Amino acid sequence: MELLKQTIAQIDPPDQQAIKSARERLDSLTKPPGSLGRLEEIAYRLAGIQGQAIPELPREKVMMVLAGDHGVVAEGVSAFPQEVTPQMVANFLRGGAAINVLSRQAGARVVVADIGIAGPPLPWPGLIDCRVKPGTDNFVLGPAMSRTEAVQAIEAGIKLVYQQVQGQPALVGTGEMGIGNTTPSSAILAVFGGLSPREVTGRGTGIDDARLVHKAAVIARAIEVNRPDPNDGLDVLAKVGGLEIAGLAGVILGCAARRLPVVIDGFISGAAALVARSLAPLSREYMFASHLSNEPGHRLMLEMLDLKPMLQLDMRLGEGTGAALAFPLLEAAIRVINEMATFAEAGVSQV
Amino acid sequence: MELLKQTIAQIDPPDQQAIKSARERLDSLTKPPGSLGRLEEIAYRLAGIQGQAIPELPREKVMMVLAGDHGVVAEGVSAFPQEVTPQMVANFLRGGAAINVLSRQAGARVVVADIGIAGPPLPWPGLIDCRVKPGTDNFVLGPAMSRTEAVQAIEAGIKLVYQQVQGQPALVGTGEMGIGNTTPSSAILAVFGGLSPREVTGRGTGIDDARLVHKAAVIARAIEVNRPDPNDGLDVLAKVGGLEIAGLAGVILGCAARRLPVVIDGFISGAAALVARSLAPLSREYMFASHLSNEPGHRLMLEMLDLKPMLQLDMRLGEGTGAALAFPLLEAAIRVINEMATFAEAGVSQV
Repeated sequence: MELLKQTIAQIDPPDQQAIKSARERLDSLTKPPGSLGRLEEIAYRLAGIQGQAIPELPREKVMMVLAGDHGVVAEGVSAFPQEVTPQMVANFLRGGAAINVLSRQAGARVVVADIGIAGPPLPWPGLIDCRVKPGTDNFVLGPAMSRTEAVQAIEAGIKLVYQQVQGQPALVGTGEMGIGNTTPSSAILAVFGGLSPREVTGRGTGIDDARLVHKAAVIARAIEVNRPDPNDGLDVLAKVGGLEIAGLAGVILGCAARRLPVVIDGFISGAAALVARSLAPLSREYMFASHLSNEPGHRLMLEMLDLKPMLQLDMRLGEGTGAALAFPLLEAAIRVINEMATFAEAGVSQV
Repeated sequence: MELLKQTIAQIDPPDQQAIKSARERLDSLTKPPGSLGRLEEIAYRLAGIQGQAIPELPREKVMMVLAGDHGVVAEGVSAFPQEVTPQMVANFLRGGAAINVLSRQAGARVVVADIGIAGPPLPWPGLIDCRVKPGTDNFVLGPAMSRTEAVQAIEAGIKLVYQQVQGQPALVGTGEMGIGNTTPSSAILAVFGGLSPREVTGRGTGIDDARLVHKAAVIARAIEVNRPDPNDGLDVLAKVGGLEIAGLAGVILGCAARRLPVVIDGFISGAAALVARSLAPLSREYMFASHLSNEPGHRLMLEMLDLKPMLQLDMRLGEGTGAALAFPLLEAAIRVINEMATFAEAGVSQV
């Protein structure tokens, strides 16, 4: 609990003076004011995070992929069997999954961590061991994990940032793998948003209509059984969350404490972002939403976080794939404020 | 006219067998079927364009930026004075504009061509001369250009592709500069879509409410005076178009004839895409929409073209900036189909 408390205490607001200077510079560049839209917003937000009017390009790009399993899959909420979690982790380690391909395209390193895959530990080279327990418990029967385990998993995510990211300037993305993990993500969204499970439950990896109705009912039962307190982020996380979701909340908090921008992937990462913001509201200032997922609750999540996605590609894969695709957009924003000529430099007439 | 006719005659449909094989391969990769959304669609469309099930990464990326002026600026439709067109072209040639910065980020070469800047020719190194005339005529008084000039400008765009792009596989983007060019673009959209000028007129580089009303009235007058025939793309282009719009229509047709994917930027490029599709309906199969512009008519344009934008960044700058940001997304799609492991290769259980 000490590390979590310290980390939260270290999160400062972005540098308002740097933001102001960045905005002034953006308005002096050879384009109609504001015409680069959200690219300009990204540029000045990064200025605030880095604490300098002209933010620097990242020296390092890291995609954090956390894997964990979910006791609730016993209820038949997923299209894929639980064995796929370690199988896909092996795929990540061999470089054959979508997240590897898209991270290569973005020039990012993929960090793969086991925070709670079911079964015995996997002795695979390259897999970082931060196992809290071999999967959560089935949360329709009681809490997914204890409050202590939830803190442990968050702290594992914080440590990943401290150990894996060398320092400023860097770009961190959130990714995950865990068969069944749209179910706890929908539950978290329902609790924080005061929404009905029906509104926030989607098809995940591709379940049919009957299973969709069943999945929403499972989530409703879990909330009824556990009665998570929406004003207590740790309570929500422990009762209806997941280990990789907790770990990603830790990654986000760790980034915020170290003044690192963190690019949020899709629905599961969004649930982690809701948890992080609930524990430390200022952490939201370090988040960038990458894409709008096809999972129906994702739009609501982003609205709650007051974040706008950059990409709209109807994706619903997770792993960090949307975040990886957004990395070049953040770099583009940094280049704009660094490299564009001003009206004065270029001798272009202003309005 | 001969080059235009030949070019149109050379446009073949994409290779359906390659598309089918690409879709089969995409479904065999380690992800839930369809879960990479539009990235998968981009991959199989590129397969169809390249005529091979597994499309290759571009060896060359070229951003075509065509500059032209507009007689209609005499009516006071723009926030910026006409002298900004050559000033910005100078900025492009020195590498200080947004399109230079974003093309560098994308690894693309910027080709800058004068297809009709007002005043005498500009003797600037690096500027490609394909001037048709020094700006269009004021189209509230009569046609913007003659039909012959419109063909000449389209053919200049076709030649640019033939001369500047070495061959397959390549990626081409459309960009432009021309003070006042949202006005002809709105006029083209209104004519092809049978829409009222009010619906399709926006603020361009940033005009106020009064000027917005005036701009829509100017467009309405131009359509009334010229009576362009929506079933004759050349007639629409000549009467209410622009030289850079004509040139970009040529770039699109040239790409389609050479089986090159062409990434369409925003509103002005969209008007060129409407013209190209009107002249050669199959050319649409070679187009990729990059972003949704803040210019209100852009959404309607993309619907008419049945294209979906990848990015939503509230941009309204033009120059090709949205297209440059989309280049890495097309490359990511190509990498996915080339580099991801199949379920069989990775030993991952399928549904």
